[in-house]
Amino acid sequence: MKLYEQVASTVKDRIDLGYYHEGDKLPSVRGLSQEHGVSISTVQEAYGLLMDDGVIESRPKSGYYVLKHQEIPELPATSSPVPEPLVVAQWQKLKHIIEEYHNQVSTKLSLALPDTETATLKPLIRLITELSRTETSRILNYESAVGSAELCHQIARLAVDSGCRLHPDEIIITIGCQEALSCSLRAVTEPGDIVVVDSPSFFGSVQAIKINGVKALEIPTHPETGISLEALEMAFEQWPIRAVLLTPTNNNPLGYSMPDKHKIRLLALLKRYDIPLIEDDIYGDLNYTLPRPRTIKSFDTEGRVILCSSFSKSVAPGLRIGWVAPGRYREHIMMVKYLSSLSTPPLTQMALAEFIAQGYYEKHLRKMRINYQRDRDAVIGWLKRDMPEGTRISYPQGGYLLWVELPNEIDTNELDRRARLESISIAPGTLFSASGKYKNFMRISCVNSANPAIEKAITTLGRLCKEMQAQIPLAEPV
Amino acid sequence: MKLYEQVASTVKDRIDLGYYHEGDKLPSVRGLSQEHGVSISTVQEAYGLLMDDGVIESRPKSGYYVLKHQEIPELPATSSPVPEPLVVAQWQKLKHIIEEYHNQVSTKLSLALPDTETATLKPLIRLITELSRTETSRILNYESAVGSAELCHQIARLAVDSGCRLHPDEIIITIGCQEALSCSLRAVTEPGDIVVVDSPSFFGSVQAIKINGVKALEIPTHPETGISLEALEMAFEQWPIRAVLLTPTNNNPLGYSMPDKHKIRLLALLKRYDIPLIEDDIYGDLNYTLPRPRTIKSFDTEGRVILCSSFSKSVAPGLRIGWVAPGRYREHIMMVKYLSSLSTPPLTQMALAEFIAQGYYEKHLRKMRINYQRDRDAVIGWLKRDMPEGTRISYPQGGYLLWVELPNEIDTNELDRRARLESISIAPGTLFSASGKYKNFMRISCVNSANPAIEKAITTLGRLCKEMQAQIPLAEPV
Repeated sequence: MKLYEQVASTVKDRIDLGYYHEGDKLPSVRGLSQEHGVSISTVQEAYGLLMDDGVIESRPKSGYYVLKHQEIPELPATSSPVPEPLVVAQWQKLKHIIEEYHNQVSTKLSLALPDTETATLKPLIRLITELSRTETSRILNYESAVGSAELCHQIARLAVDSGCRLHPDEIIITIGCQEALSCSLRAVTEPGDIVVVDSPSFFGSVQAIKINGVKALEIPTHPETGISLEALEMAFEQWPIRAVLLTPTNNNPLGYSMPDKHKIRLLALLKRYDIPLIEDDIYGDLNYTLPRPRTIKSFDTEGRVILCSSFSKSVAPGLRIGWVAPGRYREHIMMVKYLSSLSTPPLTQMALAEFIAQGYYEKHLRKMRINYQRDRDAVIGWLKRDMPEGTRISYPQGGYLLWVELPNEIDTNELDRRARLESISIAPGTLFSASGKYKNFMRISCVNSANPAIEKAITTLGRLCKEMQAQIPLAEPV
Repeated sequence: MKLYEQVASTVKDRIDLGYYHEGDKLPSVRGLSQEHGVSISTVQEAYGLLMDDGVIESRPKSGYYVLKHQEIPELPATSSPVPEPLVVAQWQKLKHIIEEYHNQVSTKLSLALPDTETATLKPLIRLITELSRTETSRILNYESAVGSAELCHQIARLAVDSGCRLHPDEIIITIGCQEALSCSLRAVTEPGDIVVVDSPSFFGSVQAIKINGVKALEIPTHPETGISLEALEMAFEQWPIRAVLLTPTNNNPLGYSMPDKHKIRLLALLKRYDIPLIEDDIYGDLNYTLPRPRTIKSFDTEGRVILCSSFSKSVAPGLRIGWVAPGRYREHIMMVKYLSSLSTPPLTQMALAEFIAQGYYEKHLRKMRINYQRDRDAVIGWLKRDMPEGTRISYPQGGYLLWVELPNEIDTNELDRRARLESISIAPGTLFSASGKYKNFMRISCVNSANPAIEKAITTLGRLCKEMQAQIPLAEPV
């Protein structure tokens, strides 16, 4: 890392840790040059880099400021879940969401689907078509149980961006991130165990915990910095925790990214209590700014962290390609994967490996990062305009999901029911908790805000909320 | 069913049940006509049909005889496994087999891979290529969690051939049969439970039992009629059995198909003790003669049978497409499937649905049935010629796997080790038992016997057996 990059990185860290907020004035060029013992031009280069990355702005005759993206609404408060391990409920609700997918709802804000209409995916389609013609023998036969060697190689190469040094042999390809998480959970837990999760937490993880006969202990979680390490340590003291399962970067649904310092402290805690971490990094590559945040895995020297990810959110879910870097649990996770599905289909693995190798993946990501940041800002703007007073909204730095806290009296299960009658779906907050908390929260996707249906849907949701507040009964369907 | 088909079916049943053996003379045309009260020409048509199906032959001036395929060697004896539930071992050995697949072994008799070089699969490749171009939006997005509607429809249609009336909505598409079996097991068992299996038994099933924390109880099994129903009933009396897991048709590895009467009796037993059956029908469509045997599911009126299958053996394993008809366990199995891998990739589902709809599947099967029967006969001939005296060989009526019992003194783990040095692999018998029995057995594939490497490999195996019998030590690699 060059000197000016180091300086830029330090300033960026301070912004991330909250020393400087949006709109705050940054130290003068002279001040920073003295602090770091570097030249004026080095500081100027550092500030230039941060401007390129969209982190800061220069105001003429005044200095440098943390870029104010927009007037953002208040964030949801740190969560306060039930402080004991629970059997996860909510399957019926989730089933409802799954089944809806192929039903009549036209604006599915409930689902975390990436933009698959983008031109940057055309080369992927071309590769699938080509390889289906030229690699017939391979696509008809079993791929290696651990996955295609080329794809493992490309994933190891990409992992460098998150600070990880992985050998291709350390990677196992799975059917999406869900299989990676499911196999990891099965490998490190037994029925009756307790697993720690953040709160709110991704429903696919908490339900996978449930069907393993494992209980979930939810930990208070801050919408910017993530899981409370103090609460986590208390939990480690109090309960026989078997594993921790987190999405520490561009979290679903809350949007937080744990600062590196928290990630390092978490790892130290895990080491002290000898507990493995299942790290879900599925939205990591969709960070709006570069370099993308480091994975906790990247700080791990003991093989304690099981890193799970996929291309379902960054490329396309229909590929069903995920992966796990299982650390010291490789043998067991490989066995579970083999006995769950033998191996992952070869055609899409080969096409994706080529897509990455030929540079299309990075090109695609560049466009998606810009689009999704724009989508976030647009949808937040509409929510501010249309939702009832007191609404709080998460402010993610990557991905395309918003976590919205509505006034107490609004039950989002009822909101969802009313919305569906207008062909709109949301993901009700209760889905994201083992205990069915978050009754007045919802998760919505903001992908493709350029489509007028999205703005219209937000306006409709706002109207429905106000009808609910005014206790206007739902008209019976004619 | 027409009259002559009814008569043919009755004669076929009697042959299947063992009233007439190979080479036996069948009733005269006149005799049969009197017995059934049908015309002479109806019986002639019936015998004509059976000749077309390769079941019987006509000898000039003598009459009709059950076709003698060849002088077949003695079958292995009914198995006598350990009569108590066991934790399944043998994972290390299985891992060895899995890893070998992409290693240097050139003649892999160990693996159950179908012929994927056949011209009858060309339309499938063409469909994959075409659909990848025309259905881009669909292939990049999640398919319904239960699978593509078109494919479910085609599977329901095909199921009629095995006597099943399934509604497309009763079917869930999975990642191969392994995911179908794995999800079914997870849905009906809990750790500590006991599941009944045949013996020998497919290693993918017994290992899936193991990682669920369930114990396997192996039941004595006959190489022609399958699991002993008397022993099964005793087991039901003696142990708290949670489920039965069987491949009752063209069994892997033993090759048996349970006669319909046994299938019906088994179902009655299951009903009496209120136990579900997981029926693996993966080789059912590869029965050499038509109509293919009925599934146990086809006799089930209560939703007690969970029918699992896939296109991995009948079409191509690289598609990774299987399915389950979960009966009364639909809700739970759908949940487990969703939380294991969310959904199955859409492209191959769509292509396979079209492949079946356009009649290519049935055309492909017609060719494969003939080829695999020819392969079976060729490989049995070479085994008879080359293997030590006392060798017994299974005589499957479908599929492409042989179960070979060698003289007691031959340990097939050692045989496999020696064979690998000559670039040949076999599946050692111990893989097929929870307790590591069948030390002097092996399973071999007989696919593609037209390739001279197969005959050569059998000759090599024969030589290695004789060297082992003569206690010639293995030469150390130079």
